[in-house]
Amino acid sequence: MSPRIEKKNIVILGGGFGGIGVLKDLQKEFNNNENVQITLVSDNNFLLFTPMLPEIVSGTIESRHIVTPIRSFCKNSRFYEAQVKSLDFTQKLVTISHNIGRHDVETDKIHEHIINYDCLVIALGSEDNFFGNSNIQKYGFTLKTIEDAINLRNHIIKVLEQAVIEQSDSVLRKALLTFVVVGGGFSGVETVGAINDFVRESVKKYYPDLYMTDIRIALVSATDKILEQIDEELGEFALQKLKANGVEFIMNSKVKDVTIENALLDDNTSIPCYSVIWTAGVAPNHIITNLTCEHDKRHRIITNSHLEVKGLEDIVYALGDCASIINPNTGKPYPPTAQHAIRQSEIVSYNVASFIKKKINGKNDRNHRKKEFNYNTKGMMAQIGKRTGVAILFGKIKIHGFLAWWLWRSYYLLNLPSSKKKIKVMGDWTFDLVFKPDVSQIH
Amino acid sequence: MSPRIEKKNIVILGGGFGGIGVLKDLQKEFNNNENVQITLVSDNNFLLFTPMLPEIVSGTIESRHIVTPIRSFCKNSRFYEAQVKSLDFTQKLVTISHNIGRHDVETDKIHEHIINYDCLVIALGSEDNFFGNSNIQKYGFTLKTIEDAINLRNHIIKVLEQAVIEQSDSVLRKALLTFVVVGGGFSGVETVGAINDFVRESVKKYYPDLYMTDIRIALVSATDKILEQIDEELGEFALQKLKANGVEFIMNSKVKDVTIENALLDDNTSIPCYSVIWTAGVAPNHIITNLTCEHDKRHRIITNSHLEVKGLEDIVYALGDCASIINPNTGKPYPPTAQHAIRQSEIVSYNVASFIKKKINGKNDRNHRKKEFNYNTKGMMAQIGKRTGVAILFGKIKIHGFLAWWLWRSYYLLNLPSSKKKIKVMGDWTFDLVFKPDVSQIH
Repeated sequence: MSPRIEKKNIVILGGGFGGIGVLKDLQKEFNNNENVQITLVSDNNFLLFTPMLPEIVSGTIESRHIVTPIRSFCKNSRFYEAQVKSLDFTQKLVTISHNIGRHDVETDKIHEHIINYDCLVIALGSEDNFFGNSNIQKYGFTLKTIEDAINLRNHIIKVLEQAVIEQSDSVLRKALLTFVVVGGGFSGVETVGAINDFVRESVKKYYPDLYMTDIRIALVSATDKILEQIDEELGEFALQKLKANGVEFIMNSKVKDVTIENALLDDNTSIPCYSVIWTAGVAPNHIITNLTCEHDKRHRIITNSHLEVKGLEDIVYALGDCASIINPNTGKPYPPTAQHAIRQSEIVSYNVASFIKKKINGKNDRNHRKKEFNYNTKGMMAQIGKRTGVAILFGKIKIHGFLAWWLWRSYYLLNLPSSKKKIKVMGDWTFDLVFKPDVSQIH
Repeated sequence: MSPRIEKKNIVILGGGFGGIGVLKDLQKEFNNNENVQITLVSDNNFLLFTPMLPEIVSGTIESRHIVTPIRSFCKNSRFYEAQVKSLDFTQKLVTISHNIGRHDVETDKIHEHIINYDCLVIALGSEDNFFGNSNIQKYGFTLKTIEDAINLRNHIIKVLEQAVIEQSDSVLRKALLTFVVVGGGFSGVETVGAINDFVRESVKKYYPDLYMTDIRIALVSATDKILEQIDEELGEFALQKLKANGVEFIMNSKVKDVTIENALLDDNTSIPCYSVIWTAGVAPNHIITNLTCEHDKRHRIITNSHLEVKGLEDIVYALGDCASIINPNTGKPYPPTAQHAIRQSEIVSYNVASFIKKKINGKNDRNHRKKEFNYNTKGMMAQIGKRTGVAILFGKIKIHGFLAWWLWRSYYLLNLPSSKKKIKVMGDWTFDLVFKPDVSQIH
């Protein structure tokens, strides 16, 4: 009898595009291999298709259609819906925790569990960053999670309803119909486009007592441009298009504080409004920032070109929004997008598999094969309202208008993780062409 | 010039089947009549199709597909999304209130408004009744609103995820997989059927680490029967069918208390569980119970056969779940179902219209035409799980099994309030035949 081989544990933290990508590749690699146990931990039990979040706000897609259960990707892997509490690189342990029972009733029934690993993949993404301002956190809306999108949508409907009742108070009515989006990046621009379409279309169809001229939808950008990640010219196109659709731009400005009834700009202008949407910053969560490894100035984990964490080579890997990975062609970190996380997951999977196979085979050579991450961004796209968008492909081909929008839809539709969701989203879009918006406000 | 006629105000309180029925009929009657202003007040801005709530729990229908914006029914009518704070029958005033700004941040920005009426229609429905037990209210789940259904569904998925992590603790694991539904009426039976299907199917498809034998789904009934509103024989059929599908019945029992981790029966048996679903009682809200008019012993408003509130004839009407309306054929109050509320709304509309027309025409005869409510229940149906149900038609034709279930689906599909929702629900059902359940837990 041959000696029993100890099972190798691969632990993946995070259920976004990066983590799920690694899970899928490693499952293929170690298909039914009894010597390998893959475990994924995430605080959500679904993969969220983040590029479509603004369409949840506008209601063109149903919320459940852009989430896919992580368990539907799991074959022989384990999945735990839990928080990551701490990492111990020395003992190779991850501590996870979860609440027992109802999530909405306060309880001290928090249970902790420990998982040990031979290889660890960190793909914990990022969180909204309010730069320490608790008012913005409390009164502002965000758009990182599916709950954020549902909340924001219902809030918008709620203020429309409030404005109807407060018709006789023109100051309050106008404040209720003012929406301020903070941040001129992808998220801010796509969000302001979605809100603009949804508010104007809903008021036109359902709120005859409200004046279209009372509606004010503004985007606050810290610089004199928007969509700088894509291209200056396309940013200008998007700006003009959104302006033509009624969006106001407040450039070279920052929102420095928010109360329940206004937004305060850095020049002390106060905008009376009940709806501030914060898209002006993300940062890794505190687990990442507190790790005893090298971080960049944005508190992301610095990796080498094999996507290994420095000083923890072979054992610990990082990718996606929580990692700082230098593009060898530009010398700058890759931008935090789904496209890059997915490509990074292929490299991580290859290197993890290579290391684990060496361990299983019991060879002692340190130089197993590793791949380096070297990827040229294929393109960047943004939807800037119904039937219009901007895109840049291969760093030089610039597209705008209907074609860019159509490209956006087709590309992301093809990239939805299951055929079920593809059909559902296609159905939602078709319906949206035919029917009026839905303004049911679910509390 | 003829003297200016003062506008007549008809105010409808409540946006359920009763209130919306009255709104639609009166709009038809007073189509573009400038002398009449119809106003509807509801704390939700949508009509909820309550018979399909259990299918939101099981996930066979998307939550937004069973709600229809009230504004889509409004032509020249006004709609206010607000709480009814108080009624003044003497001065003919309704006080409504609403919060300004975010609904989820505590704020004292509550604004009140006063609406006067010439005719008032009270259709405020009912609320869950916990008989004063605040533990049941805090730890129990209910199924009256769309939020209740979404909450319950997500909670069920959450405890499945928790059970996976707590695999090594068999006591806790079993408690997490125990679901107790309290109440043997329509709502309890349909809910236990939906939960039973959803839990067993999900565990089978997605949770290979959980044991089917750990699952315990129980219904607690205060009597020795279920579905007594329908028929004894059909109740027995439903009970046997549910038993065969794995549901446990605890008869002649009551749940007298609930904590976060167990349900306590009246014989002091304690059932360890984190999921108690309370369907054992409803009552009108405190606005109704505090009104200075006659109530029955369940605190509902007593009406005469014209559905007028006694002592406030011609002016104030009540219908639906908040009203006690005697069936002249049986001497008992009509049961609180959508079917009856809709039929009652036709009578209320007729009588209101008749009175208002007399007022507009300035005639002084007290004896304008009124109709009496005299309706024989056409049938009662319950879905008791996938592809099976029970129904009784015209008080004597009894149907059970697939045919009753098919009848249930067809009848309610036809009764959905818009063609958009009909297509969407039909689509959901078709998908459900083809695809696995979705276990994404949206917090």
